[in-house]
Amino acid sequence: TDLSDSAVGAIAKAINPIVADTFVLYLKTKNFHWHISGKHFRDYHLLLDEQADAIFASIDPLAERLRKLGAPTVHSFAEILKLATLDESEAEFLTPKEMFEELIADTKSVVQAMRKAHEVCDDKNDLATASLLENYIDEAEKRLWFLFETNQMRGDNRS
Amino acid sequence: TDLSDSAVGAIAKAINPIVADTFVLYLKTKNFHWHISGKHFRDYHLLLDEQADAIFASIDPLAERLRKLGAPTVHSFAEILKLATLDESEAEFLTPKEMFEELIADTKSVVQAMRKAHEVCDDKNDLATASLLENYIDEAEKRLWFLFETNQMRGDNRS
Amino acid sequence: TDLSDSAVGAIAKAINPIVADTFVLYLKTKNFHWHISGKHFRDYHLLLDEQADAIFASIDPLAERLRKLGAPTVHSFAEILKLATLDESEAEFLTPKEMFEELIADTKSVVQAMRKAHEVCDDKNDLATASLLENYIDEAEKRLWFLFETNQMRGDNRS
Amino acid sequence: TDLSDSAVGAIAKAINPIVADTFVLYLKTKNFHWHISGKHFRDYHLLLDEQADAIFASIDPLAERLRKLGAPTVHSFAEILKLATLDESEAEFLTPKEMFEELIADTKSVVQAMRKAHEVCDDKNDLATASLLENYIDEAEKRLWFLFETNQMRGDNRS
Amino acid sequence: TDLSDSAVGAIAKAINPIVADTFVLYLKTKNFHWHISGKHFRDYHLLLDEQADAIFASIDPLAERLRKLGAPTVHSFAEILKLATLDESEAEFLTPKEMFEELIADTKSVVQAMRKAHEVCDDKNDLATASLLENYIDEAEKRLWFLFETNQMRGDNRS
Amino acid sequence: TDLSDSAVGAIAKAINPIVADTFVLYLKTKNFHWHISGKHFRDYHLLLDEQADAIFASIDPLAERLRKLGAPTVHSFAEILKLATLDESEAEFLTPKEMFEELIADTKSVVQAMRKAHEVCDDKNDLATASLLENYIDEAEKRLWFLFETNQMRGDNRS
Amino acid sequence: TDLSDSAVGAIAKAINPIVADTFVLYLKTKNFHWHISGKHFRDYHLLLDEQADAIFASIDPLAERLRKLGAPTVHSFAEILKLATLDESEAEFLTPKEMFEELIADTKSVVQAMRKAHEVCDDKNDLATASLLENYIDEAEKRLWFLFETNQMRGDNRS
Amino acid sequence: TDLSDSAVGAIAKAINPIVADTFVLYLKTKNFHWHISGKHFRDYHLLLDEQADAIFASIDPLAERLRKLGAPTVHSFAEILKLATLDESEAEFLTPKEMFEELIADTKSVVQAMRKAHEVCDDKNDLATASLLENYIDEAEKRLWFLFETNQMRGDNRS
Amino acid sequence: TDLSDSAVGAIAKAINPIVADTFVLYLKTKNFHWHISGKHFRDYHLLLDEQADAIFASIDPLAERLRKLGAPTVHSFAEILKLATLDESEAEFLTPKEMFEELIADTKSVVQAMRKAHEVCDDKNDLATASLLENYIDEAEKRLWFLFETNQMRGDNRS
Amino acid sequence: TDLSDSAVGAIAKAINPIVADTFVLYLKTKNFHWHISGKHFRDYHLLLDEQADAIFASIDPLAERLRKLGAPTVHSFAEILKLATLDESEAEFLTPKEMFEELIADTKSVVQAMRKAHEVCDDKNDLATASLLENYIDEAEKRLWFLFETNQMRGDNRS
Amino acid sequence: TDLSDSAVGAIAKAINPIVADTFVLYLKTKNFHWHISGKHFRDYHLLLDEQADAIFASIDPLAERLRKLGAPTVHSFAEILKLATLDESEAEFLTPKEMFEELIADTKSVVQAMRKAHEVCDDKNDLATASLLENYIDEAEKRLWFLFETNQMRGDNRS
Amino acid sequence: TDLSDSAVGAIAKAINPIVADTFVLYLKTKNFHWHISGKHFRDYHLLLDEQADAIFASIDPLAERLRKLGAPTVHSFAEILKLATLDESEAEFLTPKEMFEELIADTKSVVQAMRKAHEVCDDKNDLATASLLENYIDEAEKRLWFLFETNQMRGDNRS
Repeated sequence: TDLSDSAVGAIAKAINPIVADTFVLYLKTKNFHWHISGKHFRDYHLLLDEQADAIFASIDPLAERLRKLGAPTVHSFAEILKLATLDESEAEFLTPKEMFEELIADTKSVVQAMRKAHEVCDDKNDLATASLLENYIDEAEKRLWFLFETNQMRGDNRS
Repeated sequence: TDLSDSAVGAIAKAINPIVADTFVLYLKTKNFHWHISGKHFRDYHLLLDEQADAIFASIDPLAERLRKLGAPTVHSFAEILKLATLDESEAEFLTPKEMFEELIADTKSVVQAMRKAHEVCDDKNDLATASLLENYIDEAEKRLWFLFETNQMRGDNRS
Repeated sequence: TDLSDSAVGAIAKAINPIVADTFVLYLKTKNFHWHISGKHFRDYHLLLDEQADAIFASIDPLAERLRKLGAPTVHSFAEILKLATLDESEAEFLTPKEMFEELIADTKSVVQAMRKAHEVCDDKNDLATASLLENYIDEAEKRLWFLFETNQMRGDNRS
Repeated sequence: TDLSDSAVGAIAKAINPIVADTFVLYLKTKNFHWHISGKHFRDYHLLLDEQADAIFASIDPLAERLRKLGAPTVHSFAEILKLATLDESEAEFLTPKEMFEELIADTKSVVQAMRKAHEVCDDKNDLATASLLENYIDEAEKRLWFLFETNQMRGDNRS
Repeated sequence: TDLSDSAVGAIAKAINPIVADTFVLYLKTKNFHWHISGKHFRDYHLLLDEQADAIFASIDPLAERLRKLGAPTVHSFAEILKLATLDESEAEFLTPKEMFEELIADTKSVVQAMRKAHEVCDDKNDLATASLLENYIDEAEKRLWFLFETNQMRGDNRS
Repeated sequence: TDLSDSAVGAIAKAINPIVADTFVLYLKTKNFHWHISGKHFRDYHLLLDEQADAIFASIDPLAERLRKLGAPTVHSFAEILKLATLDESEAEFLTPKEMFEELIADTKSVVQAMRKAHEVCDDKNDLATASLLENYIDEAEKRLWFLFETNQMRGDNRS
Repeated sequence: TDLSDSAVGAIAKAINPIVADTFVLYLKTKNFHWHISGKHFRDYHLLLDEQADAIFASIDPLAERLRKLGAPTVHSFAEILKLATLDESEAEFLTPKEMFEELIADTKSVVQAMRKAHEVCDDKNDLATASLLENYIDEAEKRLWFLFETNQMRGDNRS
Repeated sequence: TDLSDSAVGAIAKAINPIVADTFVLYLKTKNFHWHISGKHFRDYHLLLDEQADAIFASIDPLAERLRKLGAPTVHSFAEILKLATLDESEAEFLTPKEMFEELIADTKSVVQAMRKAHEVCDDKNDLATASLLENYIDEAEKRLWFLFETNQMRGDNRS
Repeated sequence: TDLSDSAVGAIAKAINPIVADTFVLYLKTKNFHWHISGKHFRDYHLLLDEQADAIFASIDPLAERLRKLGAPTVHSFAEILKLATLDESEAEFLTPKEMFEELIADTKSVVQAMRKAHEVCDDKNDLATASLLENYIDEAEKRLWFLFETNQMRGDNRS
Repeated sequence: TDLSDSAVGAIAKAINPIVADTFVLYLKTKNFHWHISGKHFRDYHLLLDEQADAIFASIDPLAERLRKLGAPTVHSFAEILKLATLDESEAEFLTPKEMFEELIADTKSVVQAMRKAHEVCDDKNDLATASLLENYIDEAEKRLWFLFETNQMRGDNRS
Repeated sequence: TDLSDSAVGAIAKAINPIVADTFVLYLKTKNFHWHISGKHFRDYHLLLDEQADAIFASIDPLAERLRKLGAPTVHSFAEILKLATLDESEAEFLTPKEMFEELIADTKSVVQAMRKAHEVCDDKNDLATASLLENYIDEAEKRLWFLFETNQMRGDNRS
Repeated sequence: TDLSDSAVGAIAKAINPIVADTFVLYLKTKNFHWHISGKHFRDYHLLLDEQADAIFASIDPLAERLRKLGAPTVHSFAEILKLATLDESEAEFLTPKEMFEELIADTKSVVQAMRKAHEVCDDKNDLATASLLENYIDEAEKRLWFLFETNQMRGDNRS
């Protein structure tokens, strides 16, 4: 690439934690997909699977963006846990409402990180990574919409 | 076409308000699809999208039927609002139950209009439009079934 | 086939009642798919259709396995009702919860019958029928999982 | 639906026995598909499978038509055997010719029942069910054509 | 079939000339597709091919309808030319406008014949042939629309 | 979303009129698709259908973008007519040239509105809506190109 | 094309009768497909349909080859009957064996005509038409193989 | 692999002759597909092609299983003829009945060899090869069913 | 290859200028596709794109044919311009009629070159290149037909 | 499920570490896919991607098997690292040969674990999990074959 | 066919050894595909599989060509080994370079045989077989190109 | 478009040389695809074809962007060679390493030109062209990654 080494370094420093958090969010969503229960089982099981698939699909393009710039990306789960900013969930039992609340908080946090990384890319003239992030922000905001509205309690939504 | 001008006029007079109502029902269903919330969010969001798609898919064939007969069809939303018999929904917030009740009433009304238009076509020997309406009556009755059963409250359906 | 007549007889005696029960379970699931109602209508309607499709898809391979071994399979519903071990459901109205309870009990019973039939096949060296059963046991256990978790009441699953 | 309760009752009374007969005809055709033998094995095995598939594919739309009108449909094989007008076949061995003769007689009988049911629907203004029946009458008449011509003995068809 | 021999005879007498005319209209349309020229070459060449395909696609179902009823259908082009009511076109050169005028006249004539044949089917209770004709009338009226509007001269359509 | 309420409000105020204009432009294009006539009938009928499809396909993503941000979108045609900046076309007859001129003017106006909305999004750091608009500006400019060149009169284009 | 007018004339004179014969052979094969009967009904009905489809698929490329060379092709069935060398079949009833014998004779005759037309093309340096004919000769020889072997009577083929 | 060398040797010794016999059975079936004749030509030609395809499709997975275990597989037809236990067929002419008898005998022999090889794999804890064989035994038993029933002579099957 | 070096040399000398001309013709057609204007814009824009695609699709197979024979093919546009026999078009503005005239002249010239190259291949016994050329001559003659008929002025084609 | 709690416990204890190791092996393979370099870059990059995809595809079915039995599965990467038996790779740079050696060792270890888990399932009569493992053992052995042969150095493989 | 018996005999005598050699070349290529090893394992494994597939795909059309002409084709591997001109490979170990050299020599030999067979077909006026051979010569020359260039040693290709 | 003439002029001046360089890079990559040789033949031949396809696919959208803005684009190879900044390659023989080095240098140069053109578009408010360039920069950087890593010499990559 024709970008400077320091530009690449700054971008990698912004993107690699997002890759790590994406891995963590993927497994948390998949975990909830596996362990959910109750009257809405099929509906939420499918919702969480669709969200997990979308999250997973963003990992490879983000990691390969770094490789295209010549920077290394994550090598191991140990490294991922070190880089990640999200907490993992080990609770034995969560109600769907609790699960969705946790995912809402995590997704908001990832959106903010992506918005900040976008600024870095803009600043360093890395147009392609910036463009990629715009797409993943849109997808994350869609997931937020679904999770938020599902947890809304108003009128006959209460049950 | 070999049908008389007065026959075509009578058919157009019966079909154009159905085209207009179908536009109104489409946007109402889509509107509910966009603004629904609560525990059943994904399930109802998808249900309303499927119904909106089916409703929308019937507009072009009905409008083109009139063109095949040599009659004009709707030109604008202003004209649609003049021809339509259904009321639009501008409520800030509706529970799913209220949404479904409104759609049930509207769909019933459209089915009746289609049944009457079928009589006109039969009477004027317009076999192709009659056949088209039979299909859309079936689809509308299917939508009614889904909406009706979802709003049924009995036994543990209550929550 | 190179298996003995008595081996084939024993296998047919184990498999034909499973074919009959599979027919019964198919119609019961389809019946529930047709008559379900309430807030979860679309979600459960689809769930029961998916399960009915999966159940139905297992009938032909099981029946053709017997024909490949040279044994006859079921000829009529009268014969099916004689061979079947499951009871049919003629209730006018069942809540979803009651429907799922009935399907859970029936599916468990079919899994046990398949496990026993597998022993017979193993014993008689009928490797292909045994392999087929392994697959249908997995599918039945998957249906059990979905039905069981949907009927679980805990935390905010209660409504 | 906007049709009267008595109209729906009359339609259900005409359609439910057709659903039952269609189930019976399906299993009989499948049964022949499984147990046929002789020089034409593959050809007739495929023919009967194609016919069984087409017969089966008509059950769900007919049953769901009744549900769209608000009427219940069949719940069990016991109920099906009570409603059906066709006899089941439990013969140990039938030649293809005998099989086809039995299917010809049954299919003719179902076509007549559908033609009568069509009159009821016409009479009660149930346009969608009537339209559905027109399609299944065409399919049944096609099956009749194939079965009839196959059993024709003339010139070198004799062998 | 359960229809009487005289009913089948009347239907065949109404449908076989339509099969013949459909063959003639097919070849005329294809002929124009092959020999058209001028500024609109590609557009009209495609239009005529699409219309020829649609016309051709109606021949087999109409002919097989007669076979399903037990009546013979056309055997040869000599027989077709005897049964057909349309004139063939052998002109060395026609402008597109002349071609479309000829097709408009022919198609109108076929629509009228189909409408009359529909009455015969209705009268003889042949529901499936009637239903088939409704579809082909719709298609023919669509072709008429396209041909008619293309030949319309008004405002800047003149060139 | 992590964007402020006032940011969301400003974005919604910029996007909702675009949604409304897109609805108006869709129906106008479809209207022309239905009522066009003359020598280029098929070519322009298809062109207008392709453009109408592309316009329609942009409505749902734009409306859902607002929902992802937590803002409401349009509820009814009455609201759409209030928000829209484009005039509807109710002319009995328009030549293709007049139709295309009207669409060119409208599309230019929508492109300018989208460019302004893009500035708002940029300003409010709403990266995903901005990215979406870039795509729809490209599509609108493509439609402009086709419409503009078709209305160009130069050399032998005159006829 | 850069071929001389006399070359094109010679090629058209060789190809147009093949187009005509192909039409005749198509309808004869389709006619047999419609009117066949007896034990092999489904098998031969399918065989004749496959052959009719293959024959029909060769008409347009052959006719368009002539148009690419600037020569006219057939305009009507009257012209086709004048150009064709094959006789049509109007028999009320033929056994499959008689049908296949007639098709064998006709197909052989068409193959010979194509082989002669190939010589003309070779001679006139029309490489593309020659290449096209090679393909259709192969297909015709395949149809001959199927028809010939089906009519072979030897050993237990006798019945 | 973690299996011992002697285990791999024993498995290879059991599987390689099956690979060889599968090649021989493939060519014999293909040979019959090429040289069959008589009234059932198309039906049997297709049957033998389907069976040949299924047989051929099992060669690569069986050979690659050995390679996955580190054992060599067959290198040449000379080696295949040495390893094979089935005899090849060089008869100038066979009736279909004779062909099917030969294939029945060969297929039974291959099924027995696969059942024995399965024991070897079970014994050596080679779970994957065992599982593969279960599938091919099922397929071979299906081919046996088709061939056996086609050669059955009873009632009107006699001709 | 088993062809002599001098044979390969002669073939390469005949084919490489065709590759070069094909590149030139491709860009000219694409250029016209980009810059066309007027009432037929969409129709001609599509026509030229289809022709450009077909032309482009012939480049790789022709170039790879030379590589299969062991001869080099074109390396650069400089080399292409040296080898090409067609002139490029740099006109600011051309009417469609002028564009088509230019393409007609060029395509005719390429057809003649291909016919001559075919003679070389025939002479050198290079059967595969000859066969490839037959196909591309057919495609070029088809493009000629479309271009020629579009530029024909006769009767109402004049406008 | 009808299996005892202790049986389920034993199976979960055998399968969950395999799920964990599969996650680790997936990321290691993906990591190598991202960081590989040298002359074989594209070939090995693709190889590692195919292997990573295959490994990943086995995670969900294994985890869902446990859920079908009613046992929990992995919740987080922290838990995965605790359960896993394989070491992660954090090396800055590895040659392809070193990468493949590491993957060979890990895959062998996973195959052995699966073979042991199979014994547990067999012992506890969990037929479906056993059948699933047979498939994954086959896939792992295929990956071993590819990795092993690629690292073989013999004859001209040396470079 | 209309070709003389002696013509058919001469063609069969030229084609049957090509069928036999094609079988031999297929198994040799597949054998190398199974037993190759070294750094290029995946790349060459795929290359040889693609070539084996292409070779195999030419067997059935060549054999069926002979059947279409009425000549018998190969019945067994014993007959194939008698007719084949290529030697089989039974070497325990070959380097890729040695494998490719052997395949190059064999393919060249088959191309020469096909070129000679083409002359026979030309001579006997069997246009369809000749055309088929042109295609297979092209494919064989493509395989030669790939094998030849892979074995080229020049510059940094040396390793 | 609503952009000023001077804005469009500046954008065209930035984009047209990129279109020209893209043509040059396409032919150079294709040239290398055709003339590569050595042990990695198939792998590099495919790599270069994939890269050539991706490069080619970017030409039409870039050229059409200019047309959407109303600016002309390239007309001929002569014009392309004048506008292009890259040198063409006419070397008789290049090692893969030399080829990749040349492509790396050229691609880097194109990325820089695209980054500068992006600034121009940003500056002139041409949002759609800017967005298009972001995508092509990403693709070019991906091609750079593959080419760079393939030419890396470290550890056992050396051979």
